[in-house]
Amino acid sequence: MLHAAGRALCRLGVCAAIAVCTLYVTKSTAQSAKEEQPPAHGDASPIYGITIPAGYRDWRLISVARLAGVKLKQLRAQLGNDIAITAFREGKLPFPDGTIIAALHWNEAASEENDKVLATGFPGAGLHSSVAGSAVNIQFMVKDSKKYAATGGWGFADFTNGKPGDEALHKTCFPCHLPAKDRDFVFTRYAPNH
Amino acid sequence: MLHAAGRALCRLGVCAAIAVCTLYVTKSTAQSAKEEQPPAHGDASPIYGITIPAGYRDWRLISVARLAGVKLKQLRAQLGNDIAITAFREGKLPFPDGTIIAALHWNEAASEENDKVLATGFPGAGLHSSVAGSAVNIQFMVKDSKKYAATGGWGFADFTNGKPGDEALHKTCFPCHLPAKDRDFVFTRYAPNH
Repeated sequence: MLHAAGRALCRLGVCAAIAVCTLYVTKSTAQSAKEEQPPAHGDASPIYGITIPAGYRDWRLISVARLAGVKLKQLRAQLGNDIAITAFREGKLPFPDGTIIAALHWNEAASEENDKVLATGFPGAGLHSSVAGSAVNIQFMVKDSKKYAATGGWGFADFTNGKPGDEALHKTCFPCHLPAKDRDFVFTRYAPNH
Repeated sequence: MLHAAGRALCRLGVCAAIAVCTLYVTKSTAQSAKEEQPPAHGDASPIYGITIPAGYRDWRLISVARLAGVKLKQLRAQLGNDIAITAFREGKLPFPDGTIIAALHWNEAASEENDKVLATGFPGAGLHSSVAGSAVNIQFMVKDSKKYAATGGWGFADFTNGKPGDEALHKTCFPCHLPAKDRDFVFTRYAPNH
């Protein structure tokens, strides 16, 4: 049922997480695959034709998040290109053409080494630390109000280990984002300043 | 006991979280305080004399993390200046002088709007989404092997609502980081690439 649901809806990036669970991609297999067969940069997402933007890992932080369920625990970060960051900070809606939002998802990994330190310093506090473990998937939303007019001005892309998901998966993206229509179909909010 | 432990050890940034809990700083009070009394940029951390680096929110992402215990749940992000990012990516140890690592801590906030979408799409999956809520504190580690020779070459700073914690708090930072001596006293590891 979960698998069927995963095909039906691309909600908050859960789709790819489910796909990854189905494929049993672990950290070790993912890493060795990367070493042996570097992902082709030209692979584009179906429907939208989006490739992985160069240098996205250098983009600035929008926010962090967590997704937890019966079968998965993920820590997440959303990064934005310059246009995205400016729009978020200024509360500009709709997002301007050229906006790209990247959603990076990792398996949440318990940190025994951190917990050992915490247990010594804070006995009884029940503190547990978890960190970004193996990479799960990465998603992009690209704003182009003309090119993607049929899907709210947004193109979508979902990559696992450098490879885009299939067409069925990408058909689920826009319907999933409809509930966020009043925020230009974007779920993520900018994390409060310190 | 927890409060006493918080004064004794600055482990993984828990110290400031405890301090914030003690002060009952909520999102609303923190925000109104910011609006009414913008934090003086000149306020420096005791012992180390570190002020909040300009533009740190534009730095690149090192990793994400979570801290959960009986009395707190936090989502966290670590950002690094250019020297820090290069060192992390190249696995360079010890970190070069000029390295600055920022640790941003937020209260973890359940997202009802996300959960509603998830419940519709994935019935039975028990999925829950949480996001960065109100800001808790921000910490910095600054590498200067001469200036901070007595503390492993690192200076420490912990700010809540723009104000540095007191000297007692900052005395706990370096002893806490000692268990990570073989990684130049840095707990954070670079998040795996996608």
